[in-house]
Amino acid sequence: MSRVTVAGSTIIAGIGQTEFSKHSGRSELQLAAEAARSAIADAGMTPADIDGMVTFTQDSNDELLLMRSLGIPELRYWSRTPNGGAGAHTTIQHAALAVHGGAAKAVLVYRAFNERSGRRFGQPNARVTPPGWNWYLPFGLDTPAKTYSLGFQRYMFRYGLTNEDFGRYTVVARRHAATNPNAWFHQRPITLEDHQCSRWIVEPILRLLDCCQESDGGVAMIVTTADRANDLPNRAVKVAAVADAHINDGNIMFNYYHGDLAEFPEARALGRQLYEQTGLGPSDIDAAMLYENFSPVVFLQLEALGFCGPGEAAAFIAEGNIDLTGTLPVNTHGGLLGEAYIHGLNNILEGVRQIRGTAANQLSSPETIMVAGGHSGLILQPAG
Amino acid sequence: MSRVTVAGSTIIAGIGQTEFSKHSGRSELQLAAEAARSAIADAGMTPADIDGMVTFTQDSNDELLLMRSLGIPELRYWSRTPNGGAGAHTTIQHAALAVHGGAAKAVLVYRAFNERSGRRFGQPNARVTPPGWNWYLPFGLDTPAKTYSLGFQRYMFRYGLTNEDFGRYTVVARRHAATNPNAWFHQRPITLEDHQCSRWIVEPILRLLDCCQESDGGVAMIVTTADRANDLPNRAVKVAAVADAHINDGNIMFNYYHGDLAEFPEARALGRQLYEQTGLGPSDIDAAMLYENFSPVVFLQLEALGFCGPGEAAAFIAEGNIDLTGTLPVNTHGGLLGEAYIHGLNNILEGVRQIRGTAANQLSSPETIMVAGGHSGLILQPAG
Repeated sequence: MSRVTVAGSTIIAGIGQTEFSKHSGRSELQLAAEAARSAIADAGMTPADIDGMVTFTQDSNDELLLMRSLGIPELRYWSRTPNGGAGAHTTIQHAALAVHGGAAKAVLVYRAFNERSGRRFGQPNARVTPPGWNWYLPFGLDTPAKTYSLGFQRYMFRYGLTNEDFGRYTVVARRHAATNPNAWFHQRPITLEDHQCSRWIVEPILRLLDCCQESDGGVAMIVTTADRANDLPNRAVKVAAVADAHINDGNIMFNYYHGDLAEFPEARALGRQLYEQTGLGPSDIDAAMLYENFSPVVFLQLEALGFCGPGEAAAFIAEGNIDLTGTLPVNTHGGLLGEAYIHGLNNILEGVRQIRGTAANQLSSPETIMVAGGHSGLILQPAG
Repeated sequence: MSRVTVAGSTIIAGIGQTEFSKHSGRSELQLAAEAARSAIADAGMTPADIDGMVTFTQDSNDELLLMRSLGIPELRYWSRTPNGGAGAHTTIQHAALAVHGGAAKAVLVYRAFNERSGRRFGQPNARVTPPGWNWYLPFGLDTPAKTYSLGFQRYMFRYGLTNEDFGRYTVVARRHAATNPNAWFHQRPITLEDHQCSRWIVEPILRLLDCCQESDGGVAMIVTTADRANDLPNRAVKVAAVADAHINDGNIMFNYYHGDLAEFPEARALGRQLYEQTGLGPSDIDAAMLYENFSPVVFLQLEALGFCGPGEAAAFIAEGNIDLTGTLPVNTHGGLLGEAYIHGLNNILEGVRQIRGTAANQLSSPETIMVAGGHSGLILQPAG
């Protein structure tokens, strides 16, 4: 066990969100403020209780403008997490460190954007691509779908998979979304045939229904110290572990420096760090919310995090293990494919709801939930 | 006293830098790596000991590329601090929280850029201006010098100051730089007449010699826990306090939301937080390194941080208080005007050197040094 002292000493006290849509009709600042107000109220707090803020480097909303909009009198901590959705859980690490160290008492974590009605993340954009992408652009890899697919293709080749295997994940995600009123694809389940009829995005790897949504919306959370768990209007959720793992010759969610493209060593390092902090192992996890910009990422993570062996994810999914009634329900809200793509942060909200017992597709008293994506992740448990 | 527990539990274990120039002749990544290697060696560590990284959101160097360049095997923490040089000290807050909370054991803080030979910060640039600047651009305020000057002008009007008053600060900064071999203006002191003969940048407020440099270079530091203070090759420097203060209706280093433009309430909030953490007051500070993109910012900070009363900074400086032999030596390395503009981070290195006893213009055993700039700052003391 590592000497991480943050783990267990901090809680998620409140969650909030806007509706998830394809055209919010209002500014990103408005979305951030609405989600933040909702989370603050959910924690039984007022803006005056907030003295820290964390968001993504990619978020367009300036902390000072949001602070002014909300009426927060003074901040003592702010931070931004590098890169995109694979760092969604890093926000909680930063917030937890801040309240643990006494720099702040209650930290607002937020992410809000018009990712569909504004700049579309799925389209080519030379300006905001992560560092390193300049190596790929000259070869025509100018969208995330294309850039990720070469690694996915190696994984398919290694284990003899086809796109139909990936479709089986999508069917599960859409089934979960269909009974989640927050989800964009509420009441719109699909069959494997629907999946196989959707158009190719990168043949023969990704079809349209393998790709996460582009969504408009905002989500927010309040992180504070565990000693306040009993003062809250809603059930507090303990951050039992939180980690951000970066390995040498690694990248964010994929890369071509690895010796073996069919593995996901960043996620393996993440799993190791999370398990070290808690003494838990994969069999102790009751459910998992796994970041999926594209369906194959779920397969790679199931293997890297130890939920099944290398190359076994396709069978693990086909056998029903990730269903609501399975051994490891995954993305019970529908995930980023089914609910919305709020850069992964909405997955943490689902983890909180499952522990609270308020999820749309509520599991039976889950005690330990992993929320992970690429290099960052956390383990949630009931507080107290 | 606040319940901040980070204060006193963390140290700056190593410092490193490149030369400061106007044309480094190499990449920003190379500058970052050189400064980092130097800091790691200064701390008696190897790259394998580093497991955290903090830099500015504005830094162009990707953590993964730097990690690969240095040979760091795994990171457990990374973070970026919003906005520019006024957040220079926020980097130390983040690093201190990370090691205090056990997320990392040794955090590399870095900032490196070709700010003179590459994109010049002093020139108009519509793309990277901080949020809020879009309100000023349509009125022609398209450089930092112009944008800041309106507030400075109000300060001058309130207290009957002229540009000559600001020149007296510059003369001191250049005198300190003249005997600092690291400084760009080494061996090049100026007189008040030289200052008054330099060309106007924003008449009648700022002359050329009131403006900080545009510099190429990199600086780096290693932050770790105080319990390692006795294992280091060089004298450890304790982070006795570190704060990041943001007030409602505030901004980064200036703004036009304040009721009184002749004050600097962000710096006042910072001072309050730093003094609360330590129980110290202005009279306990032996020397101060104060961020100065423009000379008047020193005046506003001296007043806001309580070193003198409102409107008294001009006399405070004219009477010699900020000289090496004064009651509060300021910017003993020459500051950002005299040494170099590495976005404020080089000021912290000077604070460390003064506590270690290794500064070019070494003071007589200073025990308590403040390094501050706008909304962020810290108090350094000998460790152990």
